[in-house]
Amino acid sequence: MKETQGTRRRFLKTAGFAAAASVTRVDRSFARGRSPATTRPDKIQFQLGLASYTLRKFKLDDVLAMTKRVGLKYIAFKDFHLPMNSTPEQARDVLEKVKKAGLILYGGGVIYMKTEAEVHRAFDYAKAAGMKTIIGVPQPQLLPLVNERVRQYDISVAIHNHGPGDRTYPTPASAYEKIKNLDRRIGLCNDVGHTKRAGVDPSESCAKYADRLLDVHMKDVSEATARGRGVEVGRGVIDIPRLVRTLVKIGYKGIVSFEYEKDADDPLPGLAESVGYVRGVIAAV
Amino acid sequence: MKETQGTRRRFLKTAGFAAAASVTRVDRSFARGRSPATTRPDKIQFQLGLASYTLRKFKLDDVLAMTKRVGLKYIAFKDFHLPMNSTPEQARDVLEKVKKAGLILYGGGVIYMKTEAEVHRAFDYAKAAGMKTIIGVPQPQLLPLVNERVRQYDISVAIHNHGPGDRTYPTPASAYEKIKNLDRRIGLCNDVGHTKRAGVDPSESCAKYADRLLDVHMKDVSEATARGRGVEVGRGVIDIPRLVRTLVKIGYKGIVSFEYEKDADDPLPGLAESVGYVRGVIAAV
Repeated sequence: MKETQGTRRRFLKTAGFAAAASVTRVDRSFARGRSPATTRPDKIQFQLGLASYTLRKFKLDDVLAMTKRVGLKYIAFKDFHLPMNSTPEQARDVLEKVKKAGLILYGGGVIYMKTEAEVHRAFDYAKAAGMKTIIGVPQPQLLPLVNERVRQYDISVAIHNHGPGDRTYPTPASAYEKIKNLDRRIGLCNDVGHTKRAGVDPSESCAKYADRLLDVHMKDVSEATARGRGVEVGRGVIDIPRLVRTLVKIGYKGIVSFEYEKDADDPLPGLAESVGYVRGVIAAV
Repeated sequence: MKETQGTRRRFLKTAGFAAAASVTRVDRSFARGRSPATTRPDKIQFQLGLASYTLRKFKLDDVLAMTKRVGLKYIAFKDFHLPMNSTPEQARDVLEKVKKAGLILYGGGVIYMKTEAEVHRAFDYAKAAGMKTIIGVPQPQLLPLVNERVRQYDISVAIHNHGPGDRTYPTPASAYEKIKNLDRRIGLCNDVGHTKRAGVDPSESCAKYADRLLDVHMKDVSEATARGRGVEVGRGVIDIPRLVRTLVKIGYKGIVSFEYEKDADDPLPGLAESVGYVRGVIAAV
């Protein structure tokens, strides 16, 4: 197997297509029916996933089927798919369904934390569902408590920026300033769409705060202002090849989760197009 | 407008992302609601389109809506969407619908021609519908008549290879040998899936017969043998980045039409993923 890849790699280099060689393994393994998310070629260290907010109008079974259909393996649930007031038993049942579908529930979010009770609830919820990451919006005064919980539960918190309309965390920079001295398991979920809408370059902000980049919400937007709306990845104003090159360059090892906000009633074609686009970029960069 | 692009281009080059600059215009124009197929950046001279065989289970109105939804502008009809025995009036009505949808009916096919009468019918059909290209399978003994009709109608004929099971034109090479001395408007539709299934490298065959490449059927297949099945582009064994680089290198100026054969009853997500993948590759090569 290794020899075959080596041979192919040498052939590609000889043929002058060296740039294609490093992603060959992704294509090959995918062709054999495995998700590209399970392979780790030399350059690409991150995985592709889904933020289930994309499928907010759909029930769990459909969410799992659609996630599998577009070939994503990692998923983070919005509370539509696992209510915040679920019992531990309910969380276990849902987790069992996810596993049976061959998927990995890596996180939950976006989860808002406005009170101490909501911080406690968020961590208990994440623990019950086996989530490694809370994609969250804790109010700044609650960050010391969040810090304590992170250490106690060994669950990460990726603070999600929501763009121009968000007074607390409009940009990755605004979140970074508040968490930089806390436990390193508290970091950022760079929502590249909201970042762009705030007039900030997603590639630059991913690079600048690389040391605390814990999650990425992948999307595209129609313009780099507050009026920017979600569109299929590749149809908007974000330079996706540059973003992918940046994530490779900084050695990002987390999940890049698609959060496709358009077409809430019929999101599958736009989600599929978006996933295809990013895979195409990954294969060609 | 030109100045803005120039400024952006310089910025990208300065930032060390020169490779991304050449495709910026595709992204930008698409973001403003135009199809990327209508723009011609420096490197990419071909357009993306749809072979309507992909949507063979759907009626014309749905076909046009789905083609628009995935952002394709050029379409070639299989006879499901314009029957071969249509009257000139029926062809005009269909053409009118295509135009109203903002699409361009550039061709028809795959059209089989086994008799002289079928050759005459194919050209009359294409003329009535304003098609510039017949993607066809004329029996070799009919090629002199096809040659005459091409000159008379100024309609191109792109001979479509159908892979290992096809006794007449299994590969681009087998078609090229039979047409190389005919009018240059007779050439090839390289169906990269069938080419790969025949054990021939799609990039190499596109390059080798570049002088007569008139159309491309874009797809991916699960393996490089007769048993290969259609899959979403990017999930199969075809090296798509290399194919795109080849089409750029040979200066291909025709249409690259998606023919997604999987999921006949529900093809939109797989088609969208395939279109996204190729756009992502184009943006990143």
